[in-house]
Amino acid sequence: MAEWTHKDLLDVQNLKREEIELVLETAKSFREVSARDVKKVPALRGKTVVMLFSENSTRTRTSFELAAKRLSADTINISANSSSIAKGETVLDTARNLEAMNIDAIVIRHPSSGVPDVLARHLKASIINAGDGCRAHPTQALLDLFTIKEKLGRIAGLNVGIVGDILHSRVARSNIWALTRLGARVTVSGPATLMPIGIERLGAYVSYDMDEIVRESDILMLLRLQMERQEDKFLPSIREYAKQFGVNRERLKQAKKDILIMHPGPTNRGVELSAEVADGEYSVILDQVTNGVAVRMAVLYLLLGAKK
Amino acid sequence: MAEWTHKDLLDVQNLKREEIELVLETAKSFREVSARDVKKVPALRGKTVVMLFSENSTRTRTSFELAAKRLSADTINISANSSSIAKGETVLDTARNLEAMNIDAIVIRHPSSGVPDVLARHLKASIINAGDGCRAHPTQALLDLFTIKEKLGRIAGLNVGIVGDILHSRVARSNIWALTRLGARVTVSGPATLMPIGIERLGAYVSYDMDEIVRESDILMLLRLQMERQEDKFLPSIREYAKQFGVNRERLKQAKKDILIMHPGPTNRGVELSAEVADGEYSVILDQVTNGVAVRMAVLYLLLGAKK
Amino acid sequence: MAEWTHKDLLDVQNLKREEIELVLETAKSFREVSARDVKKVPALRGKTVVMLFSENSTRTRTSFELAAKRLSADTINISANSSSIAKGETVLDTARNLEAMNIDAIVIRHPSSGVPDVLARHLKASIINAGDGCRAHPTQALLDLFTIKEKLGRIAGLNVGIVGDILHSRVARSNIWALTRLGARVTVSGPATLMPIGIERLGAYVSYDMDEIVRESDILMLLRLQMERQEDKFLPSIREYAKQFGVNRERLKQAKKDILIMHPGPTNRGVELSAEVADGEYSVILDQVTNGVAVRMAVLYLLLGAKK
Repeated sequence: MAEWTHKDLLDVQNLKREEIELVLETAKSFREVSARDVKKVPALRGKTVVMLFSENSTRTRTSFELAAKRLSADTINISANSSSIAKGETVLDTARNLEAMNIDAIVIRHPSSGVPDVLARHLKASIINAGDGCRAHPTQALLDLFTIKEKLGRIAGLNVGIVGDILHSRVARSNIWALTRLGARVTVSGPATLMPIGIERLGAYVSYDMDEIVRESDILMLLRLQMERQEDKFLPSIREYAKQFGVNRERLKQAKKDILIMHPGPTNRGVELSAEVADGEYSVILDQVTNGVAVRMAVLYLLLGAKK
Repeated sequence: MAEWTHKDLLDVQNLKREEIELVLETAKSFREVSARDVKKVPALRGKTVVMLFSENSTRTRTSFELAAKRLSADTINISANSSSIAKGETVLDTARNLEAMNIDAIVIRHPSSGVPDVLARHLKASIINAGDGCRAHPTQALLDLFTIKEKLGRIAGLNVGIVGDILHSRVARSNIWALTRLGARVTVSGPATLMPIGIERLGAYVSYDMDEIVRESDILMLLRLQMERQEDKFLPSIREYAKQFGVNRERLKQAKKDILIMHPGPTNRGVELSAEVADGEYSVILDQVTNGVAVRMAVLYLLLGAKK
Repeated sequence: MAEWTHKDLLDVQNLKREEIELVLETAKSFREVSARDVKKVPALRGKTVVMLFSENSTRTRTSFELAAKRLSADTINISANSSSIAKGETVLDTARNLEAMNIDAIVIRHPSSGVPDVLARHLKASIINAGDGCRAHPTQALLDLFTIKEKLGRIAGLNVGIVGDILHSRVARSNIWALTRLGARVTVSGPATLMPIGIERLGAYVSYDMDEIVRESDILMLLRLQMERQEDKFLPSIREYAKQFGVNRERLKQAKKDILIMHPGPTNRGVELSAEVADGEYSVILDQVTNGVAVRMAVLYLLLGAKK
């Protein structure tokens, strides 16, 4: 199996196929830890992991914090509002100061694309990108791969439909790259105003025939619609979006019988998908959440613990 | 002694007499832990307890967080402001996601009555109600029982006066129920506009003769006055309230000589009670705080640790 | 060596010379802990340290939190915004409640001078002043002493220039006292409007000749300029300040060849000092941050752990 040589996790694009598989394999053993009665291993005892989140995100922050704690690392939470960032300090300066305190990793979410890369270049500490702007969200892609593989046994040869606001979605970007890398066929769909020009260059197909996508997909990955996009005039109306791109029980009748419904959360029930579908038999949305902790444990372990 | 069979702690009303006594007995041994030099036992190592507080409450949140940490559980703090709740996600959806991360318990405070019950019905994780709307605050009632029993040796047969905004008080509701269950006689008092119709059905007596209540009570439980009630026109003025229902040294002269003054905190000194009385010889307000940690350790232990 | 007899750390002025040296000596061994692979010692296992910060301060809060965690203490974060302080409760009342929960130490930052002293007088728990108003910031002075001693081997006989808003600076006050106590010669400089009358009584010299200060100092300690001072009319303009008191590469040409540039952070690059100087060969700003954790571990250990 591949050896892990990276200091940081900035994007899935930096990972070789075998490295992705190493993460997934490592995550498998950690998933078992969270299912135990005593959900804790001493792998990262005495390490310090800082969560530096400058956007609201309970879900991802909690997932990383749990991952770190179950590996016995110490965790520190810093939110943009209360941090020195509010005093006008740059993120890099904040990060340099954290590094001077001998922390081992910074898990960062930031509204500007590329900020994690800047930190990674200047620091010896490990930087983990927990979502930067519209660019990348590598642990989301990794946990999606993990979930698909767990449910369907493979990734190569599968048809994956990714539907929604592709333009602003770091989840779509990271997933298109990772899925095609592992041999899946990805088709993206969504309002034409929210479809980035040249997305085909990432290896994805574009289609506006939602029914065809539903019929042909092994996996439907529905993206969260940012409601403020409507005010930005990208959308005629939420209702129109739900009608054209939303997935409900009726629409799913034409789907393959073992289709997987995925969503990075939080869902807008009644918009991207109906409540019935979100909670229904094809949905693996909560499996994604469960696997998220395991994948993040794997990433933290490979970055901090596996280096002897 | 009773065996503990509950998954959740939603209200004292769900507890049988022997179950209440089991909590108090268990709390007694945990109170000793917090008095040690090393205030920590390994009972809940590897368990995860989430604090989901959507109202400001340092006191109760800190008490639960300390309780969990002293039992060696991992804790995660989620506040309503920074959580996905702000993104319009429902509390149930947030809780379901937390459960998918294999957390063991959610301690929830919520402005709407009944929210903890909704979570309890849908989740396998233990739900602990840390105060929901005007309805229930079971750990407050339990710590009050613990404090009374510790100070006076019994509960049956005692006269308890509960004074203040009974209408909006979850503390009053939970205490009336628990105290009468254990054989105390409860009399409630307060502005008539803040006295709920039919409160007698809970087993309490109503009186507007504050001096009589002071004379006859073994315990005076003073409730925090929410200052905003005046703006809501429930009260003529704060000064008028303090004069009619506030307890000062002068008024206490007619009280029994071993009366206990209790308050769930934070106190409004000069309103519900004078500073002299709050810090005086009859006050057990800080004992309530101390016992709160022990009772919450007991509750967490019974819910998470005692099940083999 | 001195024995530690203090319950609290309120100000360096309360420390005897040998006690300061005891802190520095203890910090030396703890600095080694943070450089290890497993950055953790069990010294304060089962102790509870509360961070009660009513001003934004990632840096100091994080430094203390890391210090406590590396000593294996449990930590609780309380911020003024979410705490009962927002409900009008006094800080003393909050602290009394925390003490009733058997916590061992409160690390407090507060905008009003003297608040930590009030807590210390009324509580048995240890109070650590993490900055109160314009008055004192003892751990900052101690970490500055540690850094100077580490870099230059001594403190006695050194010339230290402290430059900036002396009037509002607790860092300046604590440092003037500590440095002169250990035999350094301190000269302060800055806008005349920001120079407190009678500062000489603390043992400092005053000079407005910035070039002379640069030439004669072994250490230049540059204070953060609070940008809002300009709106308060203390300053003609930020640019004017930078020109008169800012330190850049050009100005440093006249300095001693082993001068140390210190700053309590966060820096305003281009104001108090140029980016070149902040990141340059003379700067020990990040060493200060590293030493801050070690000094705070020493303080926590002496206050909580060393008492048998």
